[in-house]
Amino acid sequence: MTASHISRRQMIVASGIVVTGLFQADRATAQSPNTSANDAGDLIFRTTDPRNAEPPLDKLVQSWITPTDQFYVRSHAPNPVIDPKAFRLKIAGLVRKPLSLSLDDLKQHPEHTVTATLTCAGNRRIEFNKQAKVGGVQWEAGAIGNATWTGVALADVLKQAGVQDGARHIWFDGLDDVPHEGGIIPFGASVPIEKVMEGEQGIGALLVYAMNGEPLTPDHGFPLRTIVPGYIGARSVKWLGSVTASAETSPNHYLATAYKVVTKTDPIDWSETAPIYRNVINAAIGTIEGQAVAQAKLSAGTVALKGYVMPSGLVGAKVDKVQLSVDSGKSWGVAELTNEEDAYCWRLWKANVTVTPQSKELIVRANDSKGAFMPARVPWNAKGYLQNSWYRVPIEVI
Amino acid sequence: MTASHISRRQMIVASGIVVTGLFQADRATAQSPNTSANDAGDLIFRTTDPRNAEPPLDKLVQSWITPTDQFYVRSHAPNPVIDPKAFRLKIAGLVRKPLSLSLDDLKQHPEHTVTATLTCAGNRRIEFNKQAKVGGVQWEAGAIGNATWTGVALADVLKQAGVQDGARHIWFDGLDDVPHEGGIIPFGASVPIEKVMEGEQGIGALLVYAMNGEPLTPDHGFPLRTIVPGYIGARSVKWLGSVTASAETSPNHYLATAYKVVTKTDPIDWSETAPIYRNVINAAIGTIEGQAVAQAKLSAGTVALKGYVMPSGLVGAKVDKVQLSVDSGKSWGVAELTNEEDAYCWRLWKANVTVTPQSKELIVRANDSKGAFMPARVPWNAKGYLQNSWYRVPIEVI
Repeated sequence: MTASHISRRQMIVASGIVVTGLFQADRATAQSPNTSANDAGDLIFRTTDPRNAEPPLDKLVQSWITPTDQFYVRSHAPNPVIDPKAFRLKIAGLVRKPLSLSLDDLKQHPEHTVTATLTCAGNRRIEFNKQAKVGGVQWEAGAIGNATWTGVALADVLKQAGVQDGARHIWFDGLDDVPHEGGIIPFGASVPIEKVMEGEQGIGALLVYAMNGEPLTPDHGFPLRTIVPGYIGARSVKWLGSVTASAETSPNHYLATAYKVVTKTDPIDWSETAPIYRNVINAAIGTIEGQAVAQAKLSAGTVALKGYVMPSGLVGAKVDKVQLSVDSGKSWGVAELTNEEDAYCWRLWKANVTVTPQSKELIVRANDSKGAFMPARVPWNAKGYLQNSWYRVPIEVI
Repeated sequence: MTASHISRRQMIVASGIVVTGLFQADRATAQSPNTSANDAGDLIFRTTDPRNAEPPLDKLVQSWITPTDQFYVRSHAPNPVIDPKAFRLKIAGLVRKPLSLSLDDLKQHPEHTVTATLTCAGNRRIEFNKQAKVGGVQWEAGAIGNATWTGVALADVLKQAGVQDGARHIWFDGLDDVPHEGGIIPFGASVPIEKVMEGEQGIGALLVYAMNGEPLTPDHGFPLRTIVPGYIGARSVKWLGSVTASAETSPNHYLATAYKVVTKTDPIDWSETAPIYRNVINAAIGTIEGQAVAQAKLSAGTVALKGYVMPSGLVGAKVDKVQLSVDSGKSWGVAELTNEEDAYCWRLWKANVTVTPQSKELIVRANDSKGAFMPARVPWNAKGYLQNSWYRVPIEVI
């Protein structure tokens, strides 16, 4: 392991202990009151209160469907405790008939199961720190996962409520209590109404009660969440409490100010900048010779790589090519993609590359059918979002 | 000139004639009823009705201040004929005291002269056509210019009117008549109120009546226009007729839908995407050995290059480095910048590079003090905006 690679693995966990080392040493045991069954998995907790965790990449790239206990967790507040029998989802705003729906009421609508990849807009955030430190959860490349999501089409529920003509955006508000500027707010978001109602590539947005065939876990939004395929994870609001139709985008902090690509964090930057909605194309190397990538030394010759690639969230985008370089980008080989593929889903890939003592790093990049590509570098931004530059793993070959 | 270079110079002018060749052959004589004095310059008309023209790059890079008759012209409708004595600027919307101001009324406020570079968001649009044809004015790299602008601070005028607390955006509407979807609309824009009122790096936005020390010409907005330093040219509205304070961004087509970076042109793309406000960093090569760059052959050895570079519109951005490559980006030399420099202004640069028969192209790229850089390539977008990839000139060296 090179010195620069060690520094990428440094992090400060919520307890204040500085942890340095390999993935195996990074796994914190969640001790918060919110500890739930899925702590049995291999998640690496970046913070425990609130709970933010990602799987080690070697585990992540083993299956196209990510097991729930290996699925990254992104929360802004402690998991709320919600009685599913008393739970009611409110449908309000620019609708002809405001609704208050129990889970059984919701399940009167046709059930749909959709496979979709979720990823945090801050996935790979730590790579920005090489230029200047960015705040937020210090994600490596594991804040991504692919699951099946079962629920009802939000469009069906909105049709039941009768959306009025002036509605342009659909707001989501969670039942969590997020401390913010001295007060408490829910985590929230909104999405353009076209995304919800037009059903591009299937279901535009789902109200989901099951993940990978089981009821949602507390970490993933029990009893109800939204899933918005193709959009950054932050738009798929967990512990959903209300849906509001509006002429405007949501004023919630996490739509109106956070989750924007800005160089500073001044009011004018928020005004000039749109919320991030769609995912960017991204890829990472998950294993080298079947092992975690945090290896100090490789022998010259052929090495087998595995990883993931996600196309951009553009409608109809499919992965075109995944390319690998062992000579710092001077030449590129092509990886083999697995057969599993679906709209708004990642794919896994594998490749054999030949390394020599001159090889200083392994690089992966990708492009998709809609013209999106991973650039050599991306501009630094104050919140550390959308890091999708060439993914580089320093190596030492002997 | 190589074959690929010839194709870059192909264009269809408004008359429908396909013109192919060097800059010298491209200069159309404006024959529209709007012909004005500045047609005496060297402008190349891309369309004549409306009037859209850019200077040849070899002329453009001769001076830091661009002479008015060599300044690019971007219009969406015929130049309106406005009687300056009868002219009144309306200040309306969320203000305590709506105003109707003559030019003399405006000039009661302190006069300011600001040097600022304007550039069209579509500058270098034709380079996108290599991937897939984009509509709009087929700009080469000349849709940029630097001038002095004399007028009054918009902030002073808005203080006179008394902006109400709820105002977040300032709308500008022109007096031109733009045909749009079967009707007529003005060209319009809006900018966040912070840009207008905070006076970052001097004047946030100006109401301008003189350019380069002379009254505005009809092509540049006589008798009054806005200038918004650091923002794309489309926000500097010509033939300004009204200023409106609002809680929302302008609903005008040119703010709400056009001038956005989208991959398609569907309603959801407009909803998901913010208007373009700030300029991106950009640069181009203007001359080789003092001549226009459209040369077929060069002799091996040293050649002298000149060009322009504009930092991004980020507050405080200064050009850091301009770099040149003769080996397709494998290695880079550094250009020398001229002394002239001001906030939101371009700079000129010069460099000597050594070309060999292996040199297939000259490339320039740049970066600025705020972390902005010209990338190797930019994703295609449906309207052809913000082309700021490495600027490449194919060459043949003998």
